[in-house]
Amino acid sequence: MVSTLRWSDGLELLDQTKLPHDIAYVRCNTGSDVAGAIKAMIVRGAPAIGCAAAYGVALDARRFSDEAPQHFDERMENSFALLANSRPTAVNLAWALGRMKSLLYHERNAGKDDLSKVAKLLLEEAHRITNEDISANKAMGGYGADLLKDGQRVLTHCNAGALATAGHGTALGVIRSAIAQGKKISVYAGETRPWLQGSRLTAWELMQDNIPVTLIADVAAGYLMSEGSIDAVIVGADRIAANGDTANKIGTYQLAVLAEKHGIPFYVAAPTSTVDLSTPSGRHIVIEERDAAELTSFAGRRTAPENVQTRNPVFDVTPADLIDAIITEKGISMKGDHPARLVALVSG
Amino acid sequence: MVSTLRWSDGLELLDQTKLPHDIAYVRCNTGSDVAGAIKAMIVRGAPAIGCAAAYGVALDARRFSDEAPQHFDERMENSFALLANSRPTAVNLAWALGRMKSLLYHERNAGKDDLSKVAKLLLEEAHRITNEDISANKAMGGYGADLLKDGQRVLTHCNAGALATAGHGTALGVIRSAIAQGKKISVYAGETRPWLQGSRLTAWELMQDNIPVTLIADVAAGYLMSEGSIDAVIVGADRIAANGDTANKIGTYQLAVLAEKHGIPFYVAAPTSTVDLSTPSGRHIVIEERDAAELTSFAGRRTAPENVQTRNPVFDVTPADLIDAIITEKGISMKGDHPARLVALVSG
Repeated sequence: MVSTLRWSDGLELLDQTKLPHDIAYVRCNTGSDVAGAIKAMIVRGAPAIGCAAAYGVALDARRFSDEAPQHFDERMENSFALLANSRPTAVNLAWALGRMKSLLYHERNAGKDDLSKVAKLLLEEAHRITNEDISANKAMGGYGADLLKDGQRVLTHCNAGALATAGHGTALGVIRSAIAQGKKISVYAGETRPWLQGSRLTAWELMQDNIPVTLIADVAAGYLMSEGSIDAVIVGADRIAANGDTANKIGTYQLAVLAEKHGIPFYVAAPTSTVDLSTPSGRHIVIEERDAAELTSFAGRRTAPENVQTRNPVFDVTPADLIDAIITEKGISMKGDHPARLVALVSG
Repeated sequence: MVSTLRWSDGLELLDQTKLPHDIAYVRCNTGSDVAGAIKAMIVRGAPAIGCAAAYGVALDARRFSDEAPQHFDERMENSFALLANSRPTAVNLAWALGRMKSLLYHERNAGKDDLSKVAKLLLEEAHRITNEDISANKAMGGYGADLLKDGQRVLTHCNAGALATAGHGTALGVIRSAIAQGKKISVYAGETRPWLQGSRLTAWELMQDNIPVTLIADVAAGYLMSEGSIDAVIVGADRIAANGDTANKIGTYQLAVLAEKHGIPFYVAAPTSTVDLSTPSGRHIVIEERDAAELTSFAGRRTAPENVQTRNPVFDVTPADLIDAIITEKGISMKGDHPARLVALVSG
């Protein structure tokens, strides 16, 4: 498996806009480079965005570490703001920046003016966030795997895999862990319009690992459920509110409605860094709308008439009552157990 | 509005594989040409396929009319078989061929050996089927328009417009008729993967008529319903079973489930030629699965990994209990009124 992001005296991001055709890395030397890569979806997936943003802070800290302390502090404030604004919905971005910021403030408030030392600590923190993400996904996989039974056919949406994280994956991590337990699991991947994360990323990632995957149009999910071909649905998350309402890739909500209609369990897998206890419910989550071009053209060729009006929301909110279990690296919160259980998991 | 199909001493079909980029007509001089055009989706939409197939029969009758009567009859049997097998799900194809066949048999059984006269009668029948389709759509539009209220925002799927029929359209015909009544109606068009009938055809067709249309990814339908942006859903049909179960473009079923979840009325508009009383329920409808390439590439560029496994069913069945009204050219069958009401409409 190729790495989603890797450090080599600078941040190298696997360019996910080019998959599955080309395996190419984009090098980022500044926080601004990283913010641009997040906006352009060179790196995507809530946990991976968090890791990339942490490295963005570390890159800028190193870059500005020979400036006067006051200038350094101003530069870093700008760096945090730029990275925080790169995408609005995923909370892991804010969470990772929060961790970097609290380390920075701690060091600077302690009067540490050896800025290259501070920069080094920030880089170590970015490495730590990244390594913790992989460990969290493996722990999450262990908890989640117990929910999947031998022989099950699991539908997933978008890419909540190794490519969306520092490694192993959230939803796909659960599938990987179930397979590692010796269970035979096959995957249906919705292609996930408009950006085709399912076709381009999930199908590719699973094929790399020889995990059986069948690609479908998003519109075929209900039909497959109605013919009895789907045993469970598992997706990732971009933000989970305190009450369990979950923002994830557009189309997740309708899969949850369909799963309920067919009596199929619906699972969300995400690290506790995705849980935002300061957001009481889904109504408070900002839904990003992206450029019409994602919907009206492909590879430079138009798929829709010139000047057609569009709506292109790229996330939606699935209410907690449609989610049978939220799987985190610290354990599972079953339907009806949040917010108390989510608070306990986040704090525990 | 351009014509979907037109007669000019041969059948000319608007090439729907090239829209919205190019407006080009494909000329068909034989039944085999027409069958090929149906298979390749140069002409698509259940009613339009029926009209095209009728012309296919007329073209072959003319072509073979100088052969010996026995050879002519054999040739015509082959022609019917070829056209009937061009696509499996839409019943209008079988219905139109049935009309042509019963006229042919009537003439031949009456001992009419003036084959060029028979061919002329068959061409007149094809014209009649086509003209009746337009009239049916206008009548259907009148009935259906009463279900739509001023200011409503209506979601549609695939293309059930003028392009799917001989003119005016079924689902879009209802919208056109409501607008002609002076109601302000705006349309959300799901792009309709994998073939993008919504983007390429519906958005284009409505823009030609200056009807307000907003294009969305199919995965955004649930989100738009949840935010209160959709007041009604209206779609066409490829086959309606006696109990009201309706086969239509893949994705229709999940829109019906979502509409039910949000308390939004769900309407089907189709001529009575789409009602197949010999099919007792949706379980008896053959669902066509098409080539993986529709899902894995666009305009020659792959969107998915090489050799990925796929499922590409292109229709699904919406059970009657999710359909609030079936709108035909002879009146409306409300939920719970079929099959008695459908039988009455078809026979009436």
